[in-house]
Amino acid sequence: MGTLRIAACQLNLVVGDLAGNCTRIRAALDTAEEAACDLAIFPELAVTGYPPEDLLLKPQFVDDSQAALRELAATTGRCVAVIGFVDGEEAVADPTGRAFNAAAVCAGGEVLGVYHKRALPDYGVFDEERYFTPGIHALDLYDLAGTVVGISICEDVWVAGGPVRELAAGGAQLIVNINASPFHVGKVDERIEVLRDRIDESGVPIVYVNQVGGQDELVFDGASFALDGSGEVVARARQFEEEVFVFDIDPVDNPSRDVAPVEVVQPAPAPVRAAAVNRVEPALDPLAELWHGLVVGTRDYVGKNGFSDVCLGLSGGVDSSLVAAVATDALGPAHVHTVAMPSRFSSEHSLADAEKLAGNLGVDHRVIPIEPAHHAFLEMLAPEFAGHDPDVTEENVQSRIRGVVLMALANKFGWLVLTTGNKSELAVGYSTLYGDTAGAFAVIKDVWKLQVYELCRWRNESAASELIPADVLTKPPSAELRPDQRDDQSLPPYEVLDPLLVELVERERTAADLVADGGDPDLTRRVARLLDIAEYKRRQNPPGPKVSCKAFGRDRRMPITNRYLGLG
Amino acid sequence: MGTLRIAACQLNLVVGDLAGNCTRIRAALDTAEEAACDLAIFPELAVTGYPPEDLLLKPQFVDDSQAALRELAATTGRCVAVIGFVDGEEAVADPTGRAFNAAAVCAGGEVLGVYHKRALPDYGVFDEERYFTPGIHALDLYDLAGTVVGISICEDVWVAGGPVRELAAGGAQLIVNINASPFHVGKVDERIEVLRDRIDESGVPIVYVNQVGGQDELVFDGASFALDGSGEVVARARQFEEEVFVFDIDPVDNPSRDVAPVEVVQPAPAPVRAAAVNRVEPALDPLAELWHGLVVGTRDYVGKNGFSDVCLGLSGGVDSSLVAAVATDALGPAHVHTVAMPSRFSSEHSLADAEKLAGNLGVDHRVIPIEPAHHAFLEMLAPEFAGHDPDVTEENVQSRIRGVVLMALANKFGWLVLTTGNKSELAVGYSTLYGDTAGAFAVIKDVWKLQVYELCRWRNESAASELIPADVLTKPPSAELRPDQRDDQSLPPYEVLDPLLVELVERERTAADLVADGGDPDLTRRVARLLDIAEYKRRQNPPGPKVSCKAFGRDRRMPITNRYLGLG
Repeated sequence: MGTLRIAACQLNLVVGDLAGNCTRIRAALDTAEEAACDLAIFPELAVTGYPPEDLLLKPQFVDDSQAALRELAATTGRCVAVIGFVDGEEAVADPTGRAFNAAAVCAGGEVLGVYHKRALPDYGVFDEERYFTPGIHALDLYDLAGTVVGISICEDVWVAGGPVRELAAGGAQLIVNINASPFHVGKVDERIEVLRDRIDESGVPIVYVNQVGGQDELVFDGASFALDGSGEVVARARQFEEEVFVFDIDPVDNPSRDVAPVEVVQPAPAPVRAAAVNRVEPALDPLAELWHGLVVGTRDYVGKNGFSDVCLGLSGGVDSSLVAAVATDALGPAHVHTVAMPSRFSSEHSLADAEKLAGNLGVDHRVIPIEPAHHAFLEMLAPEFAGHDPDVTEENVQSRIRGVVLMALANKFGWLVLTTGNKSELAVGYSTLYGDTAGAFAVIKDVWKLQVYELCRWRNESAASELIPADVLTKPPSAELRPDQRDDQSLPPYEVLDPLLVELVERERTAADLVADGGDPDLTRRVARLLDIAEYKRRQNPPGPKVSCKAFGRDRRMPITNRYLGLG
Repeated sequence: MGTLRIAACQLNLVVGDLAGNCTRIRAALDTAEEAACDLAIFPELAVTGYPPEDLLLKPQFVDDSQAALRELAATTGRCVAVIGFVDGEEAVADPTGRAFNAAAVCAGGEVLGVYHKRALPDYGVFDEERYFTPGIHALDLYDLAGTVVGISICEDVWVAGGPVRELAAGGAQLIVNINASPFHVGKVDERIEVLRDRIDESGVPIVYVNQVGGQDELVFDGASFALDGSGEVVARARQFEEEVFVFDIDPVDNPSRDVAPVEVVQPAPAPVRAAAVNRVEPALDPLAELWHGLVVGTRDYVGKNGFSDVCLGLSGGVDSSLVAAVATDALGPAHVHTVAMPSRFSSEHSLADAEKLAGNLGVDHRVIPIEPAHHAFLEMLAPEFAGHDPDVTEENVQSRIRGVVLMALANKFGWLVLTTGNKSELAVGYSTLYGDTAGAFAVIKDVWKLQVYELCRWRNESAASELIPADVLTKPPSAELRPDQRDDQSLPPYEVLDPLLVELVERERTAADLVADGGDPDLTRRVARLLDIAEYKRRQNPPGPKVSCKAFGRDRRMPITNRYLGLG
């Protein structure tokens, strides 16, 4: 037992891209070998990308994952590689044919052992009971250059008295935990707390590797780290950046021997090498990690789906301003196209603010007035609407015209449309379906309106300039779909609305709960009802990055047809 | 042990409507008591409706379900009621706080016992591992007027060697199975086959109750039934109709006594009554049950969400004709509004066919030419598009104008928009997002194009008239978005396309699998790629009724960002 050199390979992988992922894994393994590492650890399901969802139901996909893993293993040498993949060999044991979420321990050209994940999360964004059968084999331990190492996968370390304690009882001196752990603000500290609980149970250091990058609604933030036997962070990689993170760690003495290590996996002695100086990257503050989460989620959704450029409607309001700034950070100004689409109700200052912002960001900006289409629709509908007063119908028409214009530009020039609705609007349905919700990716769908302002201010502070013009941040929010419209004519002020929605959405409270706690009965019930009724709109919204502990989308699965009022 | 009289209460329940559901349950129990039944059985989660999805994560929802069940139980008398509800009493046993999917056995004003479902489905449309913890108690048996009865819930009877065998070993002479079993074509026979397997294992008769009605994407078809100890169908209720279905059944002699029945639950002797004449409703043929599934799914989505009227675009094509006919059967002609929206590319015969169909159906029909908006958009976009040839962009603009018009009518008059895309189009992305896909409910999203024709012919045969004009069924399919356009310019003929898509979608085959079976390599790969790429469109489509064994939607959860080609 001596100091181990480990490469935590926090790679940006793509779901379904088995060949591409294996190329990335092999390149990272080269780097680890050049750094004289004893061990290179890769994220959960690194071979297939995470989460593959219903691709896992295709028998050929499972076969392809196994074949890719075998090919990778054949290229390994002295540095032991722990690689996540889908294992179907013994899936016949499961009557429904489900496979295993697996980690292969590879070295010297061979697969030396395979661990099957035991704890399968089936909550929040996770559906692992749908896809996998839990591991049933006795746990193996691996002797790496005299250090006894145990293997675990993601959720395994979130379970008290689970595989970690069992591995420690068997004599593990170090535990590897490979992950695909989705980001939300504050998750870095949560992971450390959970792992410290396992170390309290076991006394054994844990090294934790996580992937980076966006995959549909999920963002993975990396921030791979190592805790020593007392729970101290002795190494931490950067958050949100791909890297092969090399560090040294000392295993602990562990005299338990309930399970004998099954393999001496080191085919050659450790090379002579100087001690590594471990980096411990500082944690990002909450607004910084929120910003980076949005940037990475946007960049990867666009790029991994084969697009380079995006467009969005720039109203001069705070939401579209934020989305434009995020998109510019994600893709570069040359790849962002903003469009002002003034109507008869648009204010001069909105147009000016939009133009100023676009100039500050350095993005392509154009102005396409919607009056001709607006006039045409009102004429076309006039015979139908005779005798009916104008209402939200006419407002929605304007929003939908803008959707048609943006989609036409996107179709013609091969761009993706970004939508600009925030989480507060999405919650209460303050949006027009097929209008402002029309687009491929909803960048700030998991960001409350009050956070939108905070993020804008944070970005301006980072830039040390008024990148987002001050007027944008100070004028009252308005959709500008009728004369002198303001959000607070339809909704409570966001200072009231947002905290209420946090309780209803993120904490599973009901109106009755909140009224019992002293909430205003009428207001609380009205907001709770708006939230429920808007489910049909949310269901047709584009995906967007989850950055909170509970996002609309795969994280929160409410019925549309739903008469529950939660009034007690 | 003597003949039991049972009421299978196949009710149409609403998710979240606890008070309303309990009223329906109590009314059905009145009917069962008037018919001198010994036992009234209600669907799975009858109190809450099925599936409540993430409502189950709200502690108050679970409390409310338990309180509602207790109130119901207090009203029971001699007739024993088996009622599905959510039980949280012992949920503390589950570290994640999940509740139990439960059945209460109630009589004489009390809850005599509670069964917790053991087999939790987590595949297809089911997510029960997300919400429930499996039952852990020893099984109870109930002595009903001298007959020993065992209780099970839905998936419990789909498991070989599961609770059914255990109940039989304990001495059950009859097994009750309460269900919320979603419909697909052919499901009635599948259920009977599965239950016969259980009877082969156990020799004990099973009575099966299922709910009816639509809930978002799911349709429940009722068709409750009873199998005797030899597996014969001795009673079957109507499919798709709400009813309190009363029948007599003879328990079998079962000398096993591993478990003693825990309760004599009958507070009073059986009344004098004549033997019932059991109805065995004939099974519907596949096209008939498909039709009724669409009708019920549409009627309940509209009605349960508080709407009475729908509108749709009527192009004169076969898809919108079918949807108009289904909507008319679901809601009545007074509640269906069809709109022809001709463009410069629309043919005279299409307009005429649409008008003729609307006349045949007796629905409100109007014509709103889209030329003014079409012209306006082309003018607005002309400076942007200068130097670019017309392409699919301009076609999409027309489709989106129609979406704006339909949504404006719906907004103004309080209607829901029905969309008219079929499963073949949805599979390959042959549709315009925010155009023809704009709407609340996608009636035929799970019906292949070839089935669309079959259904139209079936409906005409049922009507013994050309309800849907013959021309609609014979002209070549066209979107009429450019001169002389036909579907087969963009897609293979549906006779080729549909069977290929069935393999890829419903049977989890890959392109490589199908080429290995002799499929045309280029065609197969092209269709497989179209299918994958269209995932982003499907994600923004409205919900629609699942009528096949694998529907797009909650039944098939594919990543959008996905580079898997399945080429081997």
